[in-house]
Amino acid sequence: MGYPDKFQGFMINDHNKWTDFRKEEFKPKVFGDNDVDIKIECCGVCGSDVHTINGGWGGSPLPICVGHEIVGKAIKVGSKVKTVKEGDRVGVGAQIWACLKCPQCKSDNENYCPHQVDTFGAPYPKEVDPDETITQGGYASHIRAHEYFVFPIPDEIASTDAAPMMCAGLTVWSPLSRAKVGKGSKVAVVGMGGLGHFAVLWAAALGAEVTVLSHSEHKKDDAMKLGAKEFVLTNKDGWEEPLAFKFDFVLNSADMTHTFDISKYLSICNVNAPFHQVGLPDEALPQFKAQSFMSNGSSIGASHIGSRPEMLAMLKFAAEKKLKPIVETLPIGEKGCAEAVERVSKNKVQYRFTLTDFDKAFDA
Amino acid sequence: MGYPDKFQGFMINDHNKWTDFRKEEFKPKVFGDNDVDIKIECCGVCGSDVHTINGGWGGSPLPICVGHEIVGKAIKVGSKVKTVKEGDRVGVGAQIWACLKCPQCKSDNENYCPHQVDTFGAPYPKEVDPDETITQGGYASHIRAHEYFVFPIPDEIASTDAAPMMCAGLTVWSPLSRAKVGKGSKVAVVGMGGLGHFAVLWAAALGAEVTVLSHSEHKKDDAMKLGAKEFVLTNKDGWEEPLAFKFDFVLNSADMTHTFDISKYLSICNVNAPFHQVGLPDEALPQFKAQSFMSNGSSIGASHIGSRPEMLAMLKFAAEKKLKPIVETLPIGEKGCAEAVERVSKNKVQYRFTLTDFDKAFDA
Repeated sequence: MGYPDKFQGFMINDHNKWTDFRKEEFKPKVFGDNDVDIKIECCGVCGSDVHTINGGWGGSPLPICVGHEIVGKAIKVGSKVKTVKEGDRVGVGAQIWACLKCPQCKSDNENYCPHQVDTFGAPYPKEVDPDETITQGGYASHIRAHEYFVFPIPDEIASTDAAPMMCAGLTVWSPLSRAKVGKGSKVAVVGMGGLGHFAVLWAAALGAEVTVLSHSEHKKDDAMKLGAKEFVLTNKDGWEEPLAFKFDFVLNSADMTHTFDISKYLSICNVNAPFHQVGLPDEALPQFKAQSFMSNGSSIGASHIGSRPEMLAMLKFAAEKKLKPIVETLPIGEKGCAEAVERVSKNKVQYRFTLTDFDKAFDA
Repeated sequence: MGYPDKFQGFMINDHNKWTDFRKEEFKPKVFGDNDVDIKIECCGVCGSDVHTINGGWGGSPLPICVGHEIVGKAIKVGSKVKTVKEGDRVGVGAQIWACLKCPQCKSDNENYCPHQVDTFGAPYPKEVDPDETITQGGYASHIRAHEYFVFPIPDEIASTDAAPMMCAGLTVWSPLSRAKVGKGSKVAVVGMGGLGHFAVLWAAALGAEVTVLSHSEHKKDDAMKLGAKEFVLTNKDGWEEPLAFKFDFVLNSADMTHTFDISKYLSICNVNAPFHQVGLPDEALPQFKAQSFMSNGSSIGASHIGSRPEMLAMLKFAAEKKLKPIVETLPIGEKGCAEAVERVSKNKVQYRFTLTDFDKAFDA
């Protein structure tokens, strides 16, 4: 059968065999008037992919095709689609649907829509798709998406660089943007993995003075290349003392937050500045007292991806400033997918993977 | 001897006998050029007084005279004092000194000065007072304070109402003000004790729609009188569900936060809205996951009293709007002090105590 009735994807059938990818067919949602079909060119590999296929976030429908950093070509557009035309190079991120009617959606916060649908592993509401089809991600031949969640990619950005921007890039862009990080802002980036390296890249280009806080001395050179001014090793006792009150914004991208002494990290915030988290570790935050906020009136929070206007602003900014993330590529396939998720699970990637060569892996 | 070399106060000598107040003399700091001596007329009773005398916050120097909601008359001003003159009715709050030179002080955040001195139980730095005198509070005949921490009380406000504004009033005014709470803001006040009742009073007068969240149904009438629009009982299952995304600012004044399901309280925040804490319970916050912030991008933080400009703005606002807290008065003395701190420790005060009749208790 194949497209347009069936898509092909590298799927996982068992959370205990989460590197055992098999090429299988799956049925997309019914095609709606606002939908766009995209022939996928490449797809980034996100920590969420791993948490989903290995059941770390509590299991998902199976079989599952993960991947939500998707770039490809629009090959079919619904009758009401206004923002995309056939042939456009476009991206899709971690969110594939929202009601676009609730107060959150109406205020450019559709990433907090209570009815939102994730790009993979979530059912469509019945009124959108009578079959309540479970969404499947981008380790696949095609994806079908509502145009609101389809983003034109500027010519200046290579597809393999645009892919990881769709989730990792946006997830750190949104909080930097909402905190109005700009010229002269003092920003700390805690942890420099896929998310953290984008945070350094964006914040430095926005004009902030960026300090990277890391356990890994070998990341210093890359931090500096990405635009950091300072690099602080956090495995030395007393690292936080000279940083008291220093930062207007602390972006925590580390996945080891449950091992942190939170009060040390709060102490480096300027008055009323936030310690902001991105990424979703499995473990709870370590316990702390409200007193830990008292020396500077700081706070701790987190955010979930970003909105369409933020995605468009990020892509425009990256294109204008010619910003380039550090990306490794791997050809998609049973072997490529397995290697990618295994290395991401062990933090053995600097700093992000993009799966490529989709034209070789799938039927035309 | 007596004033000006010695002041008199009702003091505690043993954390295990924290209701055993005795009238004793103590020596104030040396008089500086920027200092103001105040003959005390009345003093509010704060939860901090109790945490200090009973050792709940880890013990304090002894003997100790507590009280940091002080109103009285300036009877002597230093040669460099510009903002106060003899005879003025003035107040003193929970902070009695800061360096006024650091970046925090220079940005109207002297309440976060790392060198700050609390109004009672803290030593002055040697450069300010060669004896490094321990500060003593307002259950006393007099207090000596740097003019920056002495606030003129507008004529429209009774001394017994102004007293609790000096700590409780400011502690909730500052975060409301920094969050720009105003006309149309939707504010939740969690817990309606001394702090919470001020939060309702201020927020409603600022034009916010205020909802009180409480375990105590009998507080509903007072909440409405103070200006609340809604009252929600939080001991019913599912209380949080109809409040999802509702509030632009949640001010938590409860002292039982360690028993809360934090994720329920975070769920009532609007997108990116803060769950803000005032007051300092002894216990740590309950553990929670970063995921609890994810449905709305909320955050949790806390603040410490407020700044001089905020204190002056609050007093001006209260005077203009003729705002009146709900205050019980008690004559100061061994008995009055004991009753006040015992009832505050049991939350048996609606909503704040002011100790009065200082002229009868102390030598002229």
